[in-house]
Amino acid sequence: MDINKFLEQSAKSVEKALDRWVPKGRIKPQTLHESMRYSLFAGGKRVRPAVSLASSIACGGTSELAMPMACAVECLHTYSLIHDDLPCMDDDDFRRGKPTNHKVYGEGIAVLAGDALLTISFEMLLHAEATTRYTHRDFVRELAEASGSRQLIAGQVADLEGENATDRKVADLKFIHERKTSALLRCSARLGGMAADATPEQLSALSEFGYKVGLAFQVIDDILDETQSTENLGKTAGKDKEAGKMTYPSLIGLDKSRKYAEKLTREAFASLEIFGDQAMILNGLAGYLLGRDR
Amino acid sequence: MDINKFLEQSAKSVEKALDRWVPKGRIKPQTLHESMRYSLFAGGKRVRPAVSLASSIACGGTSELAMPMACAVECLHTYSLIHDDLPCMDDDDFRRGKPTNHKVYGEGIAVLAGDALLTISFEMLLHAEATTRYTHRDFVRELAEASGSRQLIAGQVADLEGENATDRKVADLKFIHERKTSALLRCSARLGGMAADATPEQLSALSEFGYKVGLAFQVIDDILDETQSTENLGKTAGKDKEAGKMTYPSLIGLDKSRKYAEKLTREAFASLEIFGDQAMILNGLAGYLLGRDR
Repeated sequence: MDINKFLEQSAKSVEKALDRWVPKGRIKPQTLHESMRYSLFAGGKRVRPAVSLASSIACGGTSELAMPMACAVECLHTYSLIHDDLPCMDDDDFRRGKPTNHKVYGEGIAVLAGDALLTISFEMLLHAEATTRYTHRDFVRELAEASGSRQLIAGQVADLEGENATDRKVADLKFIHERKTSALLRCSARLGGMAADATPEQLSALSEFGYKVGLAFQVIDDILDETQSTENLGKTAGKDKEAGKMTYPSLIGLDKSRKYAEKLTREAFASLEIFGDQAMILNGLAGYLLGRDR
Repeated sequence: MDINKFLEQSAKSVEKALDRWVPKGRIKPQTLHESMRYSLFAGGKRVRPAVSLASSIACGGTSELAMPMACAVECLHTYSLIHDDLPCMDDDDFRRGKPTNHKVYGEGIAVLAGDALLTISFEMLLHAEATTRYTHRDFVRELAEASGSRQLIAGQVADLEGENATDRKVADLKFIHERKTSALLRCSARLGGMAADATPEQLSALSEFGYKVGLAFQVIDDILDETQSTENLGKTAGKDKEAGKMTYPSLIGLDKSRKYAEKLTREAFASLEIFGDQAMILNGLAGYLLGRDR
């Protein structure tokens, strides 16, 4: 299994589904739909949807089954990026190598485009079919909890409040990363599994996998922010340091950060044991995320 | 049936349910949960939840059955107010007689509190039980469509883009009002009906009722903005005029606006015919909304 090929193919199929399920730019109000699509099709890595699709496969399902889940987590992720980039939040001018949403459409439309993507992410889940074990009530609960005030949004609040805070601790940073990144990756894996009617044991393994991979993902993001160029990242490098934000390298150093990401990835691999060969793609994804340079 | 008493009692029971289902202010992140609760418990009229509860009763159900729906539409409505009040939108300093959310908690937290209320509104629906005719898939679709990019958010976009526009037409204003207000009132009525397992005919009557009452509600809001004091309204009066916004009085005059609101209310009454006496409370609500002075 060539993981780059899988990522490329899954990104393509996810983009095709998103294009089908998100209102076209010509539909009124045009500015809003164009703005939603501007950020949604800005060439993200589509990591979260890939995790959903691969999780379905690990449980004996197909990519196609988990497509609504994949689109839901990608819309959710894109909304969080648009709102995080706003001047009243992280105030970022570039994302994925392009001007951020509010730089192109203005702050008002950017807030509303984020709101609309958050709303449509729940609608995406309705394209899925209920399984023997899971209904739409389970799907919606999964997404709402991961993206709600105790998880994703809690992470952004802590991040916002932690800027230039003194007395930073690794525990505080972990609190943020668990919520800002792990929660949605864990949710991506679980929703993918649910689409394939995962057994309770499989679902619990996917939870563990998503959690560890999510944490590793964010540690690596911190490392890349310090070691890579703005050009390579497609977003302003060194931004965290400049804003006085806590990062793993700033707290424990680059070397220890790398070792921590490796440890988390090994633990993610270990959590996949019960799937046997069916977890080949998930395994490949974890390895890819550890080795990425942007 | 004393409608003021019903409104008072239903507001009380809705607030009790909201208090139970929305994380307490002491739960981390405290600022976020306090901010969500600040706007949620700022003493709104609770019109939308009352419509949900009364719609359930009209279909032979109880208030209790529709409580999750009532809380969902109130959380949704509150999120839309917080975001609408932001400096990059309507830039309002007062709402319900109190400083707006961003004035108290800052813009970043206000954006996130709105996001969290939008997210939790979908979670609220999960407290309801599926009925013979309707599942959580139907509940979520109903709320997502009414609050999505073609309805509620479309209205806010059109409102934002219409400020100081020339060549205003009644049709444009109706487009905004249908989306900013009617869509959610229609949804409140329908969700309430669904909780009571409404027949297709009942659901269609509730749609018509919610649509007409929503439109009347907004026409009256326009009238009050021009005729009432800031003190009485609890929000800055005359704000629409100042911002160069279209309103019914500015387009067709106060007198014709009043007549239009009356006509819509009469049509709303008419749509309730099939419910007989069971629609007494809905009838009372429509009358109350027409006669209100704030």
